[in-house]
Amino acid sequence: MPIVLLTDYGNSDGYAGILKGVIARISPPCPVIDLTHEIAPFDIIQGGFVLYQSYRYFPRQTIFVAVVDPGVGGERKPLLIQTENYYFIGPDNGLFTLVLHTEKIERIVHLTNQKYFLKSPSSTFHGRDIFASVAAHLANGTVLENFGEEIETYQRLPEFSPRLSRKEIVGTVISVDRFGNVVTNLTRVLLAERFLDLEFSLKVGKRLVKEIKTHYAEGPPKKPFLLFGSSNLLEISVNQGSAAEVLGIQRGDEVKIKL
Amino acid sequence: MPIVLLTDYGNSDGYAGILKGVIARISPPCPVIDLTHEIAPFDIIQGGFVLYQSYRYFPRQTIFVAVVDPGVGGERKPLLIQTENYYFIGPDNGLFTLVLHTEKIERIVHLTNQKYFLKSPSSTFHGRDIFASVAAHLANGTVLENFGEEIETYQRLPEFSPRLSRKEIVGTVISVDRFGNVVTNLTRVLLAERFLDLEFSLKVGKRLVKEIKTHYAEGPPKKPFLLFGSSNLLEISVNQGSAAEVLGIQRGDEVKIKL
Amino acid sequence: MPIVLLTDYGNSDGYAGILKGVIARISPPCPVIDLTHEIAPFDIIQGGFVLYQSYRYFPRQTIFVAVVDPGVGGERKPLLIQTENYYFIGPDNGLFTLVLHTEKIERIVHLTNQKYFLKSPSSTFHGRDIFASVAAHLANGTVLENFGEEIETYQRLPEFSPRLSRKEIVGTVISVDRFGNVVTNLTRVLLAERFLDLEFSLKVGKRLVKEIKTHYAEGPPKKPFLLFGSSNLLEISVNQGSAAEVLGIQRGDEVKIKL
Repeated sequence: MPIVLLTDYGNSDGYAGILKGVIARISPPCPVIDLTHEIAPFDIIQGGFVLYQSYRYFPRQTIFVAVVDPGVGGERKPLLIQTENYYFIGPDNGLFTLVLHTEKIERIVHLTNQKYFLKSPSSTFHGRDIFASVAAHLANGTVLENFGEEIETYQRLPEFSPRLSRKEIVGTVISVDRFGNVVTNLTRVLLAERFLDLEFSLKVGKRLVKEIKTHYAEGPPKKPFLLFGSSNLLEISVNQGSAAEVLGIQRGDEVKIKL
Repeated sequence: MPIVLLTDYGNSDGYAGILKGVIARISPPCPVIDLTHEIAPFDIIQGGFVLYQSYRYFPRQTIFVAVVDPGVGGERKPLLIQTENYYFIGPDNGLFTLVLHTEKIERIVHLTNQKYFLKSPSSTFHGRDIFASVAAHLANGTVLENFGEEIETYQRLPEFSPRLSRKEIVGTVISVDRFGNVVTNLTRVLLAERFLDLEFSLKVGKRLVKEIKTHYAEGPPKKPFLLFGSSNLLEISVNQGSAAEVLGIQRGDEVKIKL
Repeated sequence: MPIVLLTDYGNSDGYAGILKGVIARISPPCPVIDLTHEIAPFDIIQGGFVLYQSYRYFPRQTIFVAVVDPGVGGERKPLLIQTENYYFIGPDNGLFTLVLHTEKIERIVHLTNQKYFLKSPSSTFHGRDIFASVAAHLANGTVLENFGEEIETYQRLPEFSPRLSRKEIVGTVISVDRFGNVVTNLTRVLLAERFLDLEFSLKVGKRLVKEIKTHYAEGPPKKPFLLFGSSNLLEISVNQGSAAEVLGIQRGDEVKIKL
């Protein structure tokens, strides 16, 4: 099964490539797939969203190495999480919140056994010295017990869940993609429960966006519209334009729906 | 044979990685090569050019998945084109114009058989739900007849061909590369027919560029010169500088040669 | 053993992908790994540093194709360098200076045998026509003697070595990474020899930076500090911020330590 990499290392430095070197040394035949290395530096929310959006399209037993790790070398634990279908390896800082909303956890291992790290691990580059190395040993068949102690909990970030009150639903922009599509944390299921006909208005800044389309090319030029994107999350889009620019929105902004 | 990916999805979101996941699920042993995911959003011309510039260096029977698809979910057909040497999969919007100038077509299949799509395909992400999926099934040996009906024509874009009159040749800038080299749609063959000694002046905006060099390092600093690039198309370049910046040119601009 | 690619071709054009096509044609089963294609255009120093930082994490006998090549088509020689552990292929312009500080050279071959180039090689794209092609033939088992004549010397760049006088050490910024970490050419070994307790002040522009930390998260917000990074080179960093921005530094700038 492949090892899939998601980091905020960028593609300009050698960091992402080094992970592939470490894996090729320990587990030469293991295929490695770059999911992305262009998560914005330290942006755990965006990293967690891209992982969530993508992971289920990979083969069962895929090993995901996800590293967005502002606290590297500090207190946060290095983890290996086994779910019903996959393995996730990375720092315990909330990065896996959204994935673990939908994937059933089987085991959480705190990575403490230095035998599976690179020799004299640095305190600045755990992606290389711990996470890639452990992933390659896992691909080689090392059993989970060997990597460290099983633990019960992991870090969750609240930003992935909308806030619900009797009067309104308050969501967050969790991603602005390359095309300027604005992805919120409002799921189709959540909205369909409250609005059987899916008729509602989304307040974005001072603007209301109302129309729901089913594909991008359907929208009028320059006018923002709503759409359930390819992950069944509510998006705001503009046909062949950037909704983020038109509306002046960025990651982290709030959106609201009156009930 | 490998599956080669060219898209405008960028490397920051999960979209490009997801294509690789879909393929790994359906056809685990099939090697996947990223040609580029950084075609400018919706830029069919640039996408078509980069594909043209690159495809012939890949092994025969390579399967190209090319997705620059502003009309996704709308009217445009999803296609699989078999040529004498390769397979091309993507939207029927002109993206394959330039490649099909040089590659002999054997069969064009309109992708209609949902059996080879992902289940409940979205209307916003055909790269994932149709094109990657079909490519992986093709790599697995599914015969062409199974994917849909054979059709006779495909969409062509006029932007790839220079306009010729008795008085002048009017070309277009079809790419500005990372180094600022300005690539036109004027081929060496076309120009050698008209100018046996390859002596001519190219009008770019208000400026005339005249000297032809054979390699970049030959040019004087800061002064634009002409050169037939690695695809035998006429380029304007500056030694260790950006011709696009020096001349204030961008993709889509016209260039002219008086006859 | 894999072929590993490092270039300044960027990820937007087809150039990097074409190298992979060339290799797949000549040596289909050979795995290819992208180290990076985002070295700044023509920046031999940054390219040499990223190669140095990364190469030792790859398996022995890995073949590195490194192309940052402002002089392509001119006088500089195309080289294949065999060291005790690896192969390095690329232009003889100083790109391998830093790697060859630490790797023991076994043989240097001037690539002259056109049999292992693509047919009618261009003078603008040796990455494709010479370097990728030779790497694939090497992966196929062609012996070194066949590629050209053995030579004795190679180009070295002075920028990688700090200047030492009785009064001070003058270093250079050889990389600014994606996170804004400023990497100098001052090694831990060099500094530990002169400052047993590693207590010293680094002069950067008009500012003195003094404190040494062991990991990024340890630093106070916005305040630059020192740290030996993952390659044991002295870095200037800011916790979750860009040291390069805070200090107004860029690649090539000088840093000084008074003795």
